[in-house]
Order: sequence, then structure tokens, then C-alpha cells
Amino acid sequence: ISSKQPNIGTTIFTVMSQLAAETGALNLSQGFPNYNCSPKLIELVNHYMKMGMNQYAPMAGIMPIREILAQKTFDLYGMTYNPNDEITIVSGCTEALYVTMTAILHKDDEVIVFEPAYDSYVPAIELNGGKAVYVTLSSENDFAINWQEVQSKITNKTKAILLTTPHNPTGKCLTQSDVDSLAALVKNTNIFVISDEVYEHIIFDGRKHISPAMHADLKERTFVCGSFGKTFHTTGWKLGYCLAPKELSAEFRKAHQWITFSCPTPFQYAFADFLKEPDNYLSVTQFYQEKRDKFIHWLRGSRFTLTPAEGSFFQMVSYKNITDEPDYDLAVRWTKEIGVASIPISVFYADKIDNKILRFCFAKDDEMLEKAAERLCKL
Amino acid sequence: ISSKQPNIGTTIFTVMSQLAAETGALNLSQGFPNYNCSPKLIELVNHYMKMGMNQYAPMAGIMPIREILAQKTFDLYGMTYNPNDEITIVSGCTEALYVTMTAILHKDDEVIVFEPAYDSYVPAIELNGGKAVYVTLSSENDFAINWQEVQSKITNKTKAILLTTPHNPTGKCLTQSDVDSLAALVKNTNIFVISDEVYEHIIFDGRKHISPAMHADLKERTFVCGSFGKTFHTTGWKLGYCLAPKELSAEFRKAHQWITFSCPTPFQYAFADFLKEPDNYLSVTQFYQEKRDKFIHWLRGSRFTLTPAEGSFFQMVSYKNITDEPDYDLAVRWTKEIGVASIPISVFYADKIDNKILRFCFAKDDEMLEKAAERLCKL
Ligand SMILES: CSCCC(=O)C(=O)O
Ligand SMILES: CSCCC(=O)C(=O)O
Repeated sequence: ISSKQPNIGTTIFTVMSQLAAETGALNLSQGFPNYNCSPKLIELVNHYMKMGMNQYAPMAGIMPIREILAQKTFDLYGMTYNPNDEITIVSGCTEALYVTMTAILHKDDEVIVFEPAYDSYVPAIELNGGKAVYVTLSSENDFAINWQEVQSKITNKTKAILLTTPHNPTGKCLTQSDVDSLAALVKNTNIFVISDEVYEHIIFDGRKHISPAMHADLKERTFVCGSFGKTFHTTGWKLGYCLAPKELSAEFRKAHQWITFSCPTPFQYAFADFLKEPDNYLSVTQFYQEKRDKFIHWLRGSRFTLTPAEGSFFQMVSYKNITDEPDYDLAVRWTKEIGVASIPISVFYADKIDNKILRFCFAKDDEMLEKAAERLCKL
Repeated sequence: ISSKQPNIGTTIFTVMSQLAAETGALNLSQGFPNYNCSPKLIELVNHYMKMGMNQYAPMAGIMPIREILAQKTFDLYGMTYNPNDEITIVSGCTEALYVTMTAILHKDDEVIVFEPAYDSYVPAIELNGGKAVYVTLSSENDFAINWQEVQSKITNKTKAILLTTPHNPTGKCLTQSDVDSLAALVKNTNIFVISDEVYEHIIFDGRKHISPAMHADLKERTFVCGSFGKTFHTTGWKLGYCLAPKELSAEFRKAHQWITFSCPTPFQYAFADFLKEPDNYLSVTQFYQEKRDKFIHWLRGSRFTLTPAEGSFFQMVSYKNITDEPDYDLAVRWTKEIGVASIPISVFYADKIDNKILRFCFAKDDEMLEKAAERLCKL
């Protein structure tokens, strides 16, 4: 078989989670909680399964979940999407991003990607015939976006700009000024914006989530890709969505219908109900604020240095004061030797830039976080 | 937006199901049951959700479901697949087929497709840069495969041959002679075989399901794409799998990990248990045999002509004796006027060949089947 992806191995998340399982390490690597979702949500799924909601959902998702998403999106962000033809339910944000690339990319089209970049972005672009053009965010510049640099990367092949806010792994959030710069940049072009917002509700210190689609000039060209997994502690249910204007959604749906066609029906009915109570998602912000604060507090006696994450459930820490080992080797060694698994940031860079930074997931119960911090403080 | 799929509309299944819903017609169009899955299966999902199995499953699927699938596949078909690296769980057979195309197709590769063809096949090929080469099965020849014709379509661009057994919409099943012909045909080539076997347990009159991968010379080049949806009345759970030799599975997984990454965890645990009791899938054969027999029996007073389906839960019927209207128009008209929705077979042909045949799904409770037949008998 002639490989389409000769240089691709197994994702870092699988590698580290497996190593953690094998060694019995505290797994602060892959981004998923070690606590359960709401019993109410489980009860709803059970209810709808018993009701017989176990056959194909409509290709775009059941109407009630699209309606409540439209409502939530309007209430929180003032953005209007028609549930009929502008909201599509997919099998997780990974599918949303992949389908977007399938829908828009023609051969050799370029997509501007910020690195460190989540590991599925570039393969999704390349498998769809596109080319990733990197803008490298630097730890020296606190991972802020230099919009002049973005501007300099735009060519007549640029089809889209892919953003993540809150950002994984850096925890950075898009600011109004970022969005204004973006809007100025793409004005009078046909460039699409793809916005990965799976951590929209996990955002700290009073910040408000800002989607590029909130900008009147950007909405018409933006695919907002979201998910229920991170918000509701259901990463294993693989349910996400894409919000995009009618014409864009039409192309998105044409691709989605051949890739997975539709998504689990009982989960859709359960979320349609669960989302009716805004506190079910609004409370997540405070929940993770406490986790981030505790984790940082417990690390205070360590030799790590860090800037508190602005959002997401990841905290990056620099280990420059401890060792100058390569981050990948160190993540592996510490998993084995001190029993705490993390993700080395270099894997998120095409050129494996090693800033001596590890990423810890703090979507873990307090006991695990405290124990992990205790071990890390000994280093 | 410059469309990648300018000629693609909404799938016929969505169109007809929607029309049926709007008009209150008996929906014998889209292939899904109107009865619920086993309460035991629901109880298992509920159990595992409560146990906290709601986070990411491993990318390839949880080990217990891969193990029991390996066992089942060996027990029923004598085929050996290593659960470690030859079995992958995906979001339904639609994803399995799409991922296979993504994994193997390079630009301009050809895939031989038999038509009438399930509607996702060709878009899956084309979106991955390939080209569908059609072998047309004819109603005059009872939809049997002419292997000499297949031979004549092979070029140095042929990357794969895509088969469906039992076949949707014709209900035909691959015979040993078909498989032998296929093996002879691809010998000394690098052609892959892709086998869509979602109806493996829905097969009639004592026939045994034959997978091309059961042939020793074919196994090494075959992707078997299967699903739990049709077998367990859970089309809305969207869980399927791909069986393929190690090297092929490796490429398959590399694509799957960027497309959906992983599949719903609680469903996987539930099926891992449920599959331990072979009667849970073996009993499906008799269940659908009775449905097919009853439906045909109830149609006996009609002016339709038919050959009983060999497998699948679809029955094709010719309406030549009733009218010569185009099948698409007729399917729409009868949905509205007599209240029975069906699928026109022309939509499964690239050139919309109209054989004056409609497809009825008999995965419906007896009451609905009898009522539908009653209405059809009046025509
Ligand atoms: C899809 S597995 C990775 C989960 C995640 O989002 C992360 O760890 O960054
Ligand atoms: C994915 S919707 C179509 C269901 C089906 O297999 C059919 O009706 O042929």
C-alpha cells in the first residue's frame, strides 16, 4: 500500500495516554476529565433510548438541538444562525474541522495555521489537498498573534485562516483587537475563517469568549466549530457542531453526509433538553476556574514557571529552571519516573520547536491534581 | 464559495423520509427499523454511562469490542483478524467506507463500482480525488455480476473494487463463484477489495453470508466494512468497524484519527457485552426472514412483480404492469397520494437508468407492512 501519510504515526494523545496507563502514572496528558458527566444527562440519554430514539437522526441533526443551539448562540454571543440551514450536528469538533476542509479546499489551496497547532489541523488540510502555511506563535511573545506576520503569509492561494479560541495548548483567548485585525485583513478577500471553539465555556478571570463570527464583517465567512464534549464532560460521546452562513453550511452538509451522514440520536435528544437550562453550561466556567486556580496554587512551591492559562483546561509550564532535556524525552521520562504524564509542546510545531514547555490537563479531580502537583514540586 | 460538489443535492433518503413525515405516509423508504433495539442493550449503555465510560475511547476502539469482533468473525467466517492492529471501530459503515477511500486513493485512481450503487460510494471516491468506474448491473440479468465486464474495466489506474453483499438496493448476495472470479481477476495485481457488509446477518432462505475476505487470496487486500446499526436496530448509534490486514489497517487508522478520531464509548462497551451472546445477532436472520416473507405474502394480490430479496431488508418491486411513469416521480406521487414512501432505483444509477422499480424497506413492524401492502394492492 502506497501511504498517503508516510510520516504520520499515532497521535501524541494516544501515545501518552497509553504510556500513562502502562506505567500507572497520573494522566494529565490527553484532554479529558477523570470525573463523570451529570447524572441528569445520563438519565436523559437513557430516557430517549427507552423511548426508541435509536434510529438515524436527520443528516443535519435533530431540529430541537439545532434550535436550542441557535438560541444559546444568540443569547450568549448575539450571533444569529438559522437552525434550518446554518447549524449542523457532527461527530465531534474533529469531524467539524475535517468536513470544513473537505467542503472548501481545492487542490493546493492554502490554510493559515497558527502553531503550536492541535495535531489534527494539518492532516485535515493536507488530506483534502490543501497546504498549511504556518504562523509561529512564540513563547517569548507570550503566544500573541502578530497580525502583520499573518498578513505577510497571505497569497492568492489563501483559502482560509484557522483559529482556536480558547487555544489548545497555550490557553490564549482571542481579543477584540485580534478580531478587528482579522476583519481588516480579510476585507475584500474571499478568505474563510475557521474557528475552533471547543473550550468556549472554559475561560478565566472574567474574560468573555469572543468568536470571530461576532464581528459583523466576519460572520459571513466564518465556520464556527464547537463541541459538547469539553463543556459537559462527555468527550467520549463525540458530538459537535458547525455554525456557518447558509451557503457555507450547504457545502459543509454535502461533505458531512458522505463522511458520517448523521450522529447518535439519543445524545442529540439528551443535549437538546440539557441545554435548555443555561446553568448547565454557564456553571462550567466557575468549575474550571477553581481547578485552574488550585492547580496553580499547588504548583507554587515548584521550580516551574508559568503564565496562568486564559482559557481551556490546559496549563503550560516552563521547566527551564529544572533541566534542559528535550521536552518529548522529558515528558516520557517523567511519566515513567515520577508518575505524571503530560504533553510536550514541541509536538504542536511542524519543526518540533522545543521551548522547554509541558502541557498539563487540569480536567482532573482535585485529589489527582494535588498529588500530581506534589510530585512536580519535588523536581 | 466555489463548490466541490456542484451537482450534489440532499440524499434521496433524507428527501423521501422528510416527504413521508410531512405527508404522514408510511415510510418504507429510508432503511431503518420502526421498532426499538433490545432493552438489554439499552440497559448496558445506561450501565456503562453510569460507570463513567463517557470519555474518549481509544482511537481504534476499546479493546473488548475489538476482541469480541475478532472472535465473532472467526467463529462465523473462519477469518482471523488481530484485535490489536487489524480491527478499527468507526462512526458507522459510511465512515468506514469514506476512511478507506481517504486511506488508499491517490489522485485519479479508479475504483470499480457496481450500480445500482449506494449513494455515498461515488462521492466518497470523488472527494478523495478518485474516479468511479461503473459496472452496470441490469435488471434483465437479475442484477448478477458479469465478471468479464468487470475485467474489461480494469486499467493501470484501478485501485480498488467496491462490493456490497448483501446488496442494497437489489438484495443480491455474493456467491462463491463471484468470489472465485474476483480472486482470479485481481491475482497478480495491487487492486484492493472493499466490501460493504452491513447486512451480513440479514440473509434469506438458508443462504450463508460470503465475504470476499474469506477467500485466502483476497483477505490480504480486502477492507471489510461493517456496522452494528442494521443488525441490532441501532442505526442511530452510528457504530461500525473496518477489518483489514495490519498494513491496510495502519493506513486506515491514520485517516480515521483525523476524521472523527474515536467513537462513542458507552455504545462500544455495551456492544462488547451484547456480542458475547451469539443469539443476539444470529436471531436477526430469522427475524427478517419472517418480515420479508410476510411482506411478499401481503403483496401477492398486487400488480407488482418481484424476485424475493436474497438479503438486506429491502424488497425491490417492478411496477411495469401498473404504469410507466418515471420511478422518481412515481415514488413522490405515491408517497403523497397513497401514503406509502419508497426509494426509486434510478437514483442509484449515474445515468439515472429507470427500470420501473421501487425499493421498499421491510424493517417495519407487521402492522405497518400489512397496511402498506394493502394500499399497494389497490394500485
Ligand atoms: C482527541 S484526543 C485529544 C484531546 C485533546 O483535545 C487534547 O488533549 O488536546
Ligand atoms: C444513511 S440513510 C440510508 C439508510 C440506508 O442504508 C438505505 O436506506 O439504503
